[in-house]
Amino acid sequence: MSARVLIVDDLFPNVKLLETKLGLEYFDTLAAMNGPDAIAICEKGLCDLVLLDVMMPGMDGFEVCRHLKSNPVTAHIPVVMVTALDQPSDRLRGLDAGADDFLTKPVDDTALFSRVRSLVRLKAVTDELRQRALASREFGIGDPLALATAETGLDARILLIEDRPGAADRMAGALRQHHAVTIEPDPHAALQRAAEEGFDLALVSLDLAGFDGLRLCSQLRSLDRTRATPLIMLAEEHDRARVVRGLDFGVHDFLMRPVDRNELTARVRTQVKRKRFTDALRGAMQASLQMAVTDALTGLHNRRYLDNHLGALFADDATRRPALAALILDIDHFKGINDSFGHEAGDEVLRGFAERVRQHTRPVDIVARYGGEEVVVILPEAGLVEAQIIAERIRERVEAVPFTVQRCTRSIPVTVSIGVAVRHAEDASPGDMLRRADLALYRAKASGRNRVEPQAA
Amino acid sequence: MSARVLIVDDLFPNVKLLETKLGLEYFDTLAAMNGPDAIAICEKGLCDLVLLDVMMPGMDGFEVCRHLKSNPVTAHIPVVMVTALDQPSDRLRGLDAGADDFLTKPVDDTALFSRVRSLVRLKAVTDELRQRALASREFGIGDPLALATAETGLDARILLIEDRPGAADRMAGALRQHHAVTIEPDPHAALQRAAEEGFDLALVSLDLAGFDGLRLCSQLRSLDRTRATPLIMLAEEHDRARVVRGLDFGVHDFLMRPVDRNELTARVRTQVKRKRFTDALRGAMQASLQMAVTDALTGLHNRRYLDNHLGALFADDATRRPALAALILDIDHFKGINDSFGHEAGDEVLRGFAERVRQHTRPVDIVARYGGEEVVVILPEAGLVEAQIIAERIRERVEAVPFTVQRCTRSIPVTVSIGVAVRHAEDASPGDMLRRADLALYRAKASGRNRVEPQAA
Repeated sequence: MSARVLIVDDLFPNVKLLETKLGLEYFDTLAAMNGPDAIAICEKGLCDLVLLDVMMPGMDGFEVCRHLKSNPVTAHIPVVMVTALDQPSDRLRGLDAGADDFLTKPVDDTALFSRVRSLVRLKAVTDELRQRALASREFGIGDPLALATAETGLDARILLIEDRPGAADRMAGALRQHHAVTIEPDPHAALQRAAEEGFDLALVSLDLAGFDGLRLCSQLRSLDRTRATPLIMLAEEHDRARVVRGLDFGVHDFLMRPVDRNELTARVRTQVKRKRFTDALRGAMQASLQMAVTDALTGLHNRRYLDNHLGALFADDATRRPALAALILDIDHFKGINDSFGHEAGDEVLRGFAERVRQHTRPVDIVARYGGEEVVVILPEAGLVEAQIIAERIRERVEAVPFTVQRCTRSIPVTVSIGVAVRHAEDASPGDMLRRADLALYRAKASGRNRVEPQAA
Repeated sequence: MSARVLIVDDLFPNVKLLETKLGLEYFDTLAAMNGPDAIAICEKGLCDLVLLDVMMPGMDGFEVCRHLKSNPVTAHIPVVMVTALDQPSDRLRGLDAGADDFLTKPVDDTALFSRVRSLVRLKAVTDELRQRALASREFGIGDPLALATAETGLDARILLIEDRPGAADRMAGALRQHHAVTIEPDPHAALQRAAEEGFDLALVSLDLAGFDGLRLCSQLRSLDRTRATPLIMLAEEHDRARVVRGLDFGVHDFLMRPVDRNELTARVRTQVKRKRFTDALRGAMQASLQMAVTDALTGLHNRRYLDNHLGALFADDATRRPALAALILDIDHFKGINDSFGHEAGDEVLRGFAERVRQHTRPVDIVARYGGEEVVVILPEAGLVEAQIIAERIRERVEAVPFTVQRCTRSIPVTVSIGVAVRHAEDASPGDMLRRADLALYRAKASGRNRVEPQAA
C-alpha cells in the first residue's frame, strides 16, 4: 500500500536521507523540522504514518508522540520513533508515550520498509472504520473515537504460545500483573483455543519444537475467528528474515529474545489498545445501525423496521405462508394522561406499555411503535382466532395492574383498545391488512374502548 | 496479508503443486476438484480468493466464475483463472465471466504471489465495508449487496494518462463506446485533474517521457482525494519488475502492450464495477447512519438527534452563549384529523406541517419531531422576543393555507399552538428549558389554541 510518510527531524541531512530511501520505494513523503509543525500536519490529516526523531530541541519526540496519541483526531496515526542509540530506556519511554515501534539510526532499510508497510496496511483497514465513526459523530450518535482514545490496554486475555517452560513462566509472570495469561505449548491446540476462547492478543514463539511458528501466525491471520486477534512474534536474532515475512503478511509486532519484561508489557499494551480501538469502532457502527430501526423512547422497533420487514413477509408466496396477523394497539385516553400527569409520566407509561406487549409476544413476532401511543404487532403464522387470544391477553395484562410513574410515587390505571386483522390472499400490500386492523381499532374505540375487535367479517 | 486460497482443479498433481507453492509463502489453502464443490466452499465464506482452472469436466471454470460473480454472497471473492494456454480468447471469456485476473500454466511464481497478495489486500478493506452492509440487511435497512451486484461497470469517467498520441487515440477509441474518456499526457496535470474531477478509473502509462509512471501511481494511491480511484498500469514487457512493485503498493491491475482492445474494455469494466461496489457500500453505511437520527415519516430529525445535540449546546459555557430558545409546536385537534380523514391523511398533514416549519427556520436551527404531532425547534442565539416572532410567523403560515391531502382531493384547515422558552443561566439541563416551553404550550392550548405563548415571566 502506498502512503504519505511524515519525516520529523531537526537535522536537514537526516530528513533528506529518509526522503530519498522512501522515495525509491514509492512512498510519498512530507517533512517537519520540529514538533509543533509535525503535530499541525497530523491534525490536518495530511499523513498516514510518522517517522519521529527522539532528540529535537524544544519539544522532543516523546512529547510529540504523547500529544499525537492523546488526541482522538491523531491517535490512529502510526508513530515510529527513530533514535540515535538503541537504548532500552529510550524504547520504553517511547512505548509509554504510545509509539507503535522503533528504528535505530543508522536506519536499516529492510527494517524500515517492512515496518512502514506493515503499519500502513493495518491502518488502511482501521481508516475505513474510522470514517464511519466520524460520520456517527457528525450525525450526533455518540463519539466512539473519544471513548477509544481513553482505553488503557490493561486487563486483557492473552494466549502465550511457547513450549520452553522457563521462558513461558518468565513472560507470564511479567504479564500477569495486568492481564490474564494462558500458556499453550502445543501449536495445534493453540489454534483451536484461539478460535474458541476469544483472546485479546496472542504471543507466538517462532521456534516451537518441530513446528514453524510463522505458519501458525499465518493460520491465525487467515481464519475468520482469529483474524482480528493481534499477534506478536517471539524471535531469535537468526529469525530476522522470518520476522520481516511475518510483518509482510500481517503479523502486528515482534519481540527479540531475550525478551525485556518492560518492552514486553509495553508492546502488549499497545496492541491491546489498538484492538480495542478497532472493536469499539465496529461496535459503534453496529449500535448506530441498530438505532436506525429502534424507537428511542420504548426500545421497540420503529416504523421503518416494520415497513421493511412486513414488506418482506408479504413478498413470500401467499399460498405457502397464508397465515399472518396484525394487531394495532392504541392506549385509551393517552392525551388525558399527558395532560394530567405531564409528558414525562406519559413517556413512562409508554415504556411500561411497550414492555408488557413485549412480554406477551414471541421473538419471531414484530413489535413496533407505529405512532405516538400506537403499537403494531405482526404475528407470523397466526390466524384470526389465535391473534385475538393474544390481543385479549395483552388487553387484560394492561388493565390488571396500573402503571407506576414518577419513581413509583404515582400509579395510573391504563387500558388499551386493539384492532385485529389477518392477511387475505387478495391483499396487494401490507397496507391492506393494516387498514382492516385500523378500522377494527376504530370500532373498538367507538364501542367503549378497553376491548379487542376483529376485522369485519 | 495472509489468506485462505481455494485451489480448484480436477487434476490432483496441479492442486498439489499450487498448494506447495502457496504454503511456502505462508498462505493457507483449500482444494476443490470440481465446480459445484468450489461454489459450496465459497458460499460458506471459507476462502478469501479462488484460483480457478478453466478446463474441468462438467461445469467448466467460466461457468463457475459466472456463478460466483452473479451471487451477492460470493461476488466479492476475487477469482483468478488458471489457463493452460495463453489464449486471448480464453482471457476474454474469463473476464466476461467476471474473473479478476489470469495466470498461465506453468504458473510463474512472481506473477502468482504478487497477484494473490494484491487481490487479498484489496479485499481486506472491502470486507470491512461488507460486514457493515450485511448488518444493515439484517436490521432491515435495504440490501446494498444485491444492488451492487447488479452494477454493469459501464458509463464511467476515465482518465487516460498517456503521452503517445497514437496509443492514446486507439485506447480512447475502444473505451468511448461505453465510457467518457479524458486524455492527459502531462503527469503533473494528471495528478491535479485526478484529485479535482472525480474519475471512476485512471489508466497510467509506465513509460511517460521523462517521468516515472509508477511514481504517479504511488502519488495517486497516497492522496486522500484519489486513493479510492482504481488504477490500471500500461506496461511494456521490460516493465515486469515495476508492475510487480505497483501491484505490491496497491495498483489494482495492469495491461501489457500492445494493448488488446477487448482485454482493455473488459479489465476497465471489472475495476469500475469493483469501485462502484465499494462506493455503494460506503453510501449505504452513510444512509443508515442518517436514518438513525431522522424521523422516517417527516424527514425531520428525531428525538435522539435532538437530545444529543441539545446536550452539546447546553454543555457550552452558559455565559459565553447565553441565548438559546426552544419552541414546542403541537398541531391542534390532530386526533380529530386522524379520526375524520384517516391515518394516512393525518400523516400527510404531518409531512406538510414539517415542511412549513422547515421553511421558516434556518439551517443552524434544530427541527425535530418530538412525539406524535409535536415538533421541537431549537434556535441558537435567539432571545425570547426573536423566538416569539419566529413562532408567530410559523403559526400564521400554518393557519393561512389549508393542507391538501389524498392527492389534492381534500383540503384540511390546520392550526398550531406553540410554547416558547429561552435558556436560563441556572438551568441544569435542556429538560428545564423544554419543561417551560411545554408549560407555555399548555397555556396556549388552554386559552383557545392557535396561539403562541411565551414562558411565564
